[in-house]
Amino acid sequence: MSRTVVVAGVGPGLGASVARRFAIEGCRVALFARSESYIDELAAELDEDSAGEALAVPTDLTDPDAIESGFEAVRDAFGPVDVLVNHASGGSWKGLTDLSQEEFDRALDVGARGAFLCSQEAVGDMLGNDNDNDDGDTGGTVIFTGATSAIRGRDGALAFSAAKFAARGMAQSMARELGPKGIHVAHVVVDGGISPPNRTVENPEEYLDPDAIADSYWHLVEQDESAWTLELDLRPHVEKF
Amino acid sequence: MSRTVVVAGVGPGLGASVARRFAIEGCRVALFARSESYIDELAAELDEDSAGEALAVPTDLTDPDAIESGFEAVRDAFGPVDVLVNHASGGSWKGLTDLSQEEFDRALDVGARGAFLCSQEAVGDMLGNDNDNDDGDTGGTVIFTGATSAIRGRDGALAFSAAKFAARGMAQSMARELGPKGIHVAHVVVDGGISPPNRTVENPEEYLDPDAIADSYWHLVEQDESAWTLELDLRPHVEKF
Amino acid sequence: MSRTVVVAGVGPGLGASVARRFAIEGCRVALFARSESYIDELAAELDEDSAGEALAVPTDLTDPDAIESGFEAVRDAFGPVDVLVNHASGGSWKGLTDLSQEEFDRALDVGARGAFLCSQEAVGDMLGNDNDNDDGDTGGTVIFTGATSAIRGRDGALAFSAAKFAARGMAQSMARELGPKGIHVAHVVVDGGISPPNRTVENPEEYLDPDAIADSYWHLVEQDESAWTLELDLRPHVEKF
Amino acid sequence: MSRTVVVAGVGPGLGASVARRFAIEGCRVALFARSESYIDELAAELDEDSAGEALAVPTDLTDPDAIESGFEAVRDAFGPVDVLVNHASGGSWKGLTDLSQEEFDRALDVGARGAFLCSQEAVGDMLGNDNDNDDGDTGGTVIFTGATSAIRGRDGALAFSAAKFAARGMAQSMARELGPKGIHVAHVVVDGGISPPNRTVENPEEYLDPDAIADSYWHLVEQDESAWTLELDLRPHVEKF
Repeated sequence: MSRTVVVAGVGPGLGASVARRFAIEGCRVALFARSESYIDELAAELDEDSAGEALAVPTDLTDPDAIESGFEAVRDAFGPVDVLVNHASGGSWKGLTDLSQEEFDRALDVGARGAFLCSQEAVGDMLGNDNDNDDGDTGGTVIFTGATSAIRGRDGALAFSAAKFAARGMAQSMARELGPKGIHVAHVVVDGGISPPNRTVENPEEYLDPDAIADSYWHLVEQDESAWTLELDLRPHVEKF
Repeated sequence: MSRTVVVAGVGPGLGASVARRFAIEGCRVALFARSESYIDELAAELDEDSAGEALAVPTDLTDPDAIESGFEAVRDAFGPVDVLVNHASGGSWKGLTDLSQEEFDRALDVGARGAFLCSQEAVGDMLGNDNDNDDGDTGGTVIFTGATSAIRGRDGALAFSAAKFAARGMAQSMARELGPKGIHVAHVVVDGGISPPNRTVENPEEYLDPDAIADSYWHLVEQDESAWTLELDLRPHVEKF
Repeated sequence: MSRTVVVAGVGPGLGASVARRFAIEGCRVALFARSESYIDELAAELDEDSAGEALAVPTDLTDPDAIESGFEAVRDAFGPVDVLVNHASGGSWKGLTDLSQEEFDRALDVGARGAFLCSQEAVGDMLGNDNDNDDGDTGGTVIFTGATSAIRGRDGALAFSAAKFAARGMAQSMARELGPKGIHVAHVVVDGGISPPNRTVENPEEYLDPDAIADSYWHLVEQDESAWTLELDLRPHVEKF
Repeated sequence: MSRTVVVAGVGPGLGASVARRFAIEGCRVALFARSESYIDELAAELDEDSAGEALAVPTDLTDPDAIESGFEAVRDAFGPVDVLVNHASGGSWKGLTDLSQEEFDRALDVGARGAFLCSQEAVGDMLGNDNDNDDGDTGGTVIFTGATSAIRGRDGALAFSAAKFAARGMAQSMARELGPKGIHVAHVVVDGGISPPNRTVENPEEYLDPDAIADSYWHLVEQDESAWTLELDLRPHVEKF
């Protein structure tokens, strides 16, 4: 079975690794990001090098209309969505006393409202999938990329903490609502820094390899519905936590 | 020491009990709510019956300008704020598939952004308090009224879960930022239904008495800074959980 | 109403502060500890200086027979038990590779089995209280002194973490079993170092004042059964967490 | 690389599925259980049908000497241990008022002390592995089979909750101690009933398929050390939680 996947929020780090892994597995992968240049390049690479296909969909996740038309573009190209990865975040690293209202709004608009709207679009497809065809009882998968700040509010990162907590609350609510309908909702707590693309770091073992993270995303998609994971954490073996 | 208190989001249930308890302890209590009629009535009652004073401040917590002028009104009447209770919530009980964007936005605007803006106003006063006088290192208290949906996303309550999680994340971030500056931030998980005002219920022991909840809010305000609570839960003794 | 209280595990730190606070409130307080000398001295002090009474009950909490006869001594002197504070712990600060079986057993025998046996004795009295007299629906209170290691297993403290987790699991199980029977079970997460008795520390604000902790224990005992707390945390305002 | 695996606590349910999955992947699997008959039968099946090998090691996990000689038998047959699955539990479903001391002790001896002693034996091998050869920095994997009662103490299951919490506390402590040494410690929260072997159930979708659980155990063993999971949960898609 070849899946249609939306990765909402793709940059050259984890987003790209997840998209690449899905493409390698033969999926049709739609890449959402505000800026066109990187996703165009990545889409070309995936079309060339993987078993799957890719589509760059320039989309501002703070704009509800853009999200709607982005999903329309995906459906036109690839058909209904089977997997959504809510991967975007927009938090500035400021505490209560320094944060502007605009920064707060932006973090919540990207990390909470954007994820809500993308989920509504994708889950509509997944429920429709379920009704329209006979592919069994699994309607799809929604994965949220979380962070330590989703389970432990962080000093000096008020809006990021608020948005990451909000997304985790949504994931849990959706898992309870949608699990019985065959949709697997999962929340991944990425605890630690991810290896930066295109540069060398001094102590590479202190960073998560984004391809290794993508392995666990793929495992979540492949889990049998009799034993689904709502939440798992991921960290480098040397991480202090 | 007589404190100036803002209760943001006052209705005839828990908000009124908290306001009443603070007034009984001699505080000057500002009552924020969108509709004027109830808070006018409550302010008159508290002025009459308690050792403290009360001020009705009609305020739409989704409106940043209204929050700013609300706090100005409090300072004019009572001086700088010592205690803030973030008590408002605006979630509709709908799941992903039924929720409109307007309902989502409203829940987050009231429960997350409103609490952020009120906290910024109040904490500005508390930090100022600290600088302007010699009352030691305790600048004030911020209490968030949370719910079970703040720690366990609820089926059929997507936006409420998102907003309550977001507020908890903010509380934790703020506690870490502001504790060392003498400001006590606490999050109360109210687990269960609160006794409704003005009507009799069949099994009263299944409900939280709002006056009993207010006892724990007051305990939080009175805690010594050497042993502050970030989070406590409250539920009726017969609650299944 | 004057309560009979057992503090299981009394030393000159938090145990003494809790016992003292209960005695000040007029309780009859039984002090359990392995070594007689300190509790004899404390009992004399409390009898002299407080509104309540105190009884030293030398008890090895790893010895089931000693626990049983300790509770018998309390009943003979003070009548049935109303409040139990499970306060003892016996963990050595060692990780997996260094810990001996004897050290593991001791930590679990004191922190888990001892707390189980004391709870069984005390709750038997509390349920009996409920049946024998008409004092309403509150049969009593059981408080566990927990630690950060009860919610976050600690590097280099394997047995302490195991015992503290076990006690928290018991507290939650008991709260669900006994709440509907009018017995309040609570677990206090003490996060940070407690001010050491009888010596000065360099940065006193980095320590919890044991008398301030005892304030929250007393608040738990006094909570109305319509709004009981299962868990609260306590830490110094400057604590990094 | 072919691994030596100990599954401590093998019955015809999940233990057998985990052992079978490891054997299919080519591992040498030692089966620990008190009663010999089932593990003899399973070992014969695995030797016959899988790419790996199996060894039945009759072992009473409440007996420290038996654990020590069990691991000796494994080393003699298969060499040093690479993977340990702490899978045994011995809790009776009783609350505080009904539980005997013997039942409490047994639950803790199997679920906590047995897991500690097995971990000490296995981790000794894993650290030795690391030193003796050049197979890189991953010394091994320890997986704890947890339950919902490991994160939420259960009414009417006091000793089971205590033991499961204790094991989770140990897992977290060990993960922090041993991760930097290349040993992956993970805790799996199995939330729900597992399909019973050898009989049909009315609503099979309400049960976890033990083979599906075993997929996630294998994923944990295969994770790259740059992105290790400490905890994941597993439940049927229709589970209410």
